[in-house]
Amino acid sequence: MRVKLCVEYDGASFSGWQVQPGQRTVQSELENAISVYLSSLAKEQTQGKIEPPRTTASGRTDAGVHARNQVVSFDWPEELEFDSFRFAHSINGISDKALRIKSAEIVDQSFDARRSSHKKCYSYSFIQGHSPIDNPRVLSIPQKLDIPSMIEAAKLIAGTHDFKSFQASDCAASTTIRTILASELVYYDSGIYRYYVIGNGFLKQMVRTIMGTLIEVGLKKREAKSILEIIEAKDRKLAGPVVEAKGLTLEWVKYD
Amino acid sequence: MRVKLCVEYDGASFSGWQVQPGQRTVQSELENAISVYLSSLAKEQTQGKIEPPRTTASGRTDAGVHARNQVVSFDWPEELEFDSFRFAHSINGISDKALRIKSAEIVDQSFDARRSSHKKCYSYSFIQGHSPIDNPRVLSIPQKLDIPSMIEAAKLIAGTHDFKSFQASDCAASTTIRTILASELVYYDSGIYRYYVIGNGFLKQMVRTIMGTLIEVGLKKREAKSILEIIEAKDRKLAGPVVEAKGLTLEWVKYD
Repeated sequence: MRVKLCVEYDGASFSGWQVQPGQRTVQSELENAISVYLSSLAKEQTQGKIEPPRTTASGRTDAGVHARNQVVSFDWPEELEFDSFRFAHSINGISDKALRIKSAEIVDQSFDARRSSHKKCYSYSFIQGHSPIDNPRVLSIPQKLDIPSMIEAAKLIAGTHDFKSFQASDCAASTTIRTILASELVYYDSGIYRYYVIGNGFLKQMVRTIMGTLIEVGLKKREAKSILEIIEAKDRKLAGPVVEAKGLTLEWVKYD
Repeated sequence: MRVKLCVEYDGASFSGWQVQPGQRTVQSELENAISVYLSSLAKEQTQGKIEPPRTTASGRTDAGVHARNQVVSFDWPEELEFDSFRFAHSINGISDKALRIKSAEIVDQSFDARRSSHKKCYSYSFIQGHSPIDNPRVLSIPQKLDIPSMIEAAKLIAGTHDFKSFQASDCAASTTIRTILASELVYYDSGIYRYYVIGNGFLKQMVRTIMGTLIEVGLKKREAKSILEIIEAKDRKLAGPVVEAKGLTLEWVKYD
């Protein structure tokens, strides 16, 4: 029986999604909580031994990256009863407050949080200056930015392109071609600007590298239209730096 | 020479505005930073001794309360040159990142951040459930709330009333009559609701007591129209509890 979860987490509290020895990660925190819950259910219902669960997320978020609606799937032991409300309530009670199950449901066995996903949205927030209140999830940029040029440059990311120039050097993706359905920089609130990008998939560090490049446009280190030349070149050295993880949030993931 | 500052701070980092022995408060952090800066200026310009500055805020925010645009005034030593940009830049460099000067300007000697203020806006944010990302400044309410009734109740706070029922028992205000110009509950973003209240002044813990009462309306512990009866009664025992400071933000202060 496959279960699909919608999960929110504060990236600052974890060393990313993936289980890593000796690190506090979202996956280990979540799997530990599910284990504890399944063991207590087994004790109640079957007295059998429970295999530790193995969860799959729509994508591995890096250390510091937040998720508003991450999607996770895992296999529920057939012999145990599944109660969505009780499950979410219990996991939220057991696990850290920095992690929250927003919904849990039984889905078709063919569902895989990573492989079945066909659209994702990320946001990246920044401010000209520094905001003590919003600092935990907003990048501070001391210099004045040319926002209109950044808005223009952001739009040029949309389309089906080879994004090799925006990929981390250790990225293992088999193809670097991705379709970006929307790429827009908007004013959010209280001096904060937010870059929203929706695509069929993203390469490792792709959004943070795009953002680093857009900020260079804002600082007039490069022109807005240079985005097209960077894509064309398929050369990581031409794009800007990877910006801090704290500004990045996985907003949502869509499935067919 | 009087200086007017606009200051943002993260309430969680301080034990409130006011200087208190052995506590890290916004006022002590700010006054220490100004002292350091004035001493360095005096060394450069006059070699004279500098009196420690005494700052006045538009109002004393309690421990945990945030300020987006707190207004502060203090006297600048006549013998020293005032450079607004250099001042803000230096203070932001010296003081904690949880505190930020957004602007600094010379104003008329009659200006007093507290006495001259004639309008203030506070916001209070809450969510049904719990958001790991927004948790530092949003109150979590596990139960489902009747939002339409809360919206209706919020509007009843507006007007000139005796707010004795919503005042902390140790509040030393000479009169408990205040004029509330706007009192509205709105949907903000990502599941967060925000209560905005604008008034000519506020009693100690008044906004948090109003919010605690509105939440009781949301939980159906009392009816929306009971707000009018609570105001009428002038009795603190009739209003709801004081809610957590972390949801409260002083948004802005206006002067003539």
